[in-house]
Amino acid sequence: MKPGELLIIGGAEEKFHGGEVLQKFVDLAGRQNSGIGILPTASEIPDEVSSDYIQTFKQLGVGRVEVIDVDSRERAENPEILELVESLSAVFITGGDQSRLSKLIGGTRLHEKLTDKWKNGMVLAGTSAGASIMAKSMIVAADTKLNDDKLNVELGTGFGFLDHILIDQHFSQRARFDRLLSAIAENREIIGIGIDENTAILVHDNKFEVYGEHQVLVIDGKSSEFVDIKIGENGSEELTISGFKLHALTRGYSFDLSRRILILKKGKTE
Amino acid sequence: MKPGELLIIGGAEEKFHGGEVLQKFVDLAGRQNSGIGILPTASEIPDEVSSDYIQTFKQLGVGRVEVIDVDSRERAENPEILELVESLSAVFITGGDQSRLSKLIGGTRLHEKLTDKWKNGMVLAGTSAGASIMAKSMIVAADTKLNDDKLNVELGTGFGFLDHILIDQHFSQRARFDRLLSAIAENREIIGIGIDENTAILVHDNKFEVYGEHQVLVIDGKSSEFVDIKIGENGSEELTISGFKLHALTRGYSFDLSRRILILKKGKTE
Repeated sequence: MKPGELLIIGGAEEKFHGGEVLQKFVDLAGRQNSGIGILPTASEIPDEVSSDYIQTFKQLGVGRVEVIDVDSRERAENPEILELVESLSAVFITGGDQSRLSKLIGGTRLHEKLTDKWKNGMVLAGTSAGASIMAKSMIVAADTKLNDDKLNVELGTGFGFLDHILIDQHFSQRARFDRLLSAIAENREIIGIGIDENTAILVHDNKFEVYGEHQVLVIDGKSSEFVDIKIGENGSEELTISGFKLHALTRGYSFDLSRRILILKKGKTE
Repeated sequence: MKPGELLIIGGAEEKFHGGEVLQKFVDLAGRQNSGIGILPTASEIPDEVSSDYIQTFKQLGVGRVEVIDVDSRERAENPEILELVESLSAVFITGGDQSRLSKLIGGTRLHEKLTDKWKNGMVLAGTSAGASIMAKSMIVAADTKLNDDKLNVELGTGFGFLDHILIDQHFSQRARFDRLLSAIAENREIIGIGIDENTAILVHDNKFEVYGEHQVLVIDGKSSEFVDIKIGENGSEELTISGFKLHALTRGYSFDLSRRILILKKGKTE
């Protein structure tokens, strides 16, 4: 069995009026049709967040929607929770703080269960914090303060469904180019992927296709010949880099994560 | 005679305590030592802006500092103004609104005089709006609204001392990556140069060297194999681009604008 699709969303996806991104998730999940689970652990207000998604998924015609109610590592080891996840065909990881996901779920049996299920075809989606957690590394530092000096970027450990990529979300809307570029300059084997709001990448077979409203930026420093990172007096990170590659993609375009190139389909229309 | 150096500053340069950028300008101007002119036309408060720079340049030991007081196209045709500029060894163009510079000075005899003097060795510096005006094209659109949808980028005509480059300033501090990338996607023969605050490039012989505190980003789309620009429902600009090149430079590093590569000096130390 092949791993399931990963739908990685840049946050603030349209929840009503036929939002394309969540519709895509429901379509993918629907193939097996045994129910969608909502994992709201990243959020400090999990009940409110879950109730919004329950409403949305019900409106999109999903028969069974369950909340995977995990607010402690104890809960993430609970056999009932594992049984619930076992019974589902797809899991949606909500936004919030990605550090909560790694602290409360990283390394637990729930983490293991999600990994096993995904490897055997379960569809997983995540938005915002739920997007960042998908890869092995994730950005956990505070935002760059605009109109002030730049901050260092701090990386943490995600759920690791994807290796060699680093997801950033709310990308154009929160002007996160600097922090993603810094992270990639320090980790050149990793491909940086900045996903705008209400926009998603669907990852499958080491390729991704873009869905939704805005843009996905790809930063690739692998073939760069020179990188020098200086830390300024105030702790800001200043980069000298030579020849990084930059790609951007919108709805319908695809990227090959192995060959690190945009895939141009013949006869494509938009 | 060779054209003079152009010192192009990303705004908010340190004015006291031995700020490196303005010190460099004074050093360059000092070689001929016949006085520095301040051109405050971009600013709506030219007197205040000028008085700050007069104080700074005097503190840096400049003997003669003059204000080139031009607030109308009539003034920009005035023989006394032209005579003043003729007598100077360097001119500093302040910040403000770059559209004021093009509207009030573009195409006038003052514009012609500055061009002639520069071609014959006069040193020119510009900060913020005064930086943008240096090239043939400049960004004049309003800023990208953060946390909102992206805007289109509008280009205007600068003084044209440099061809084939497009300057943006306050670059990291105002998170202007998106707007510069859009402008370059639409004009791929032009090299995009984003200069941070209190940071400058010194252009000479189609190369530039970086001075100051932060970072200079270079976006080069010339060798890209694919660009597709979509305008979203709300007028936002969404890009698909393949294989743009990205460079970043800090103090002491240089870039070759003809070959479009970072220049690595042997034995360089920092």
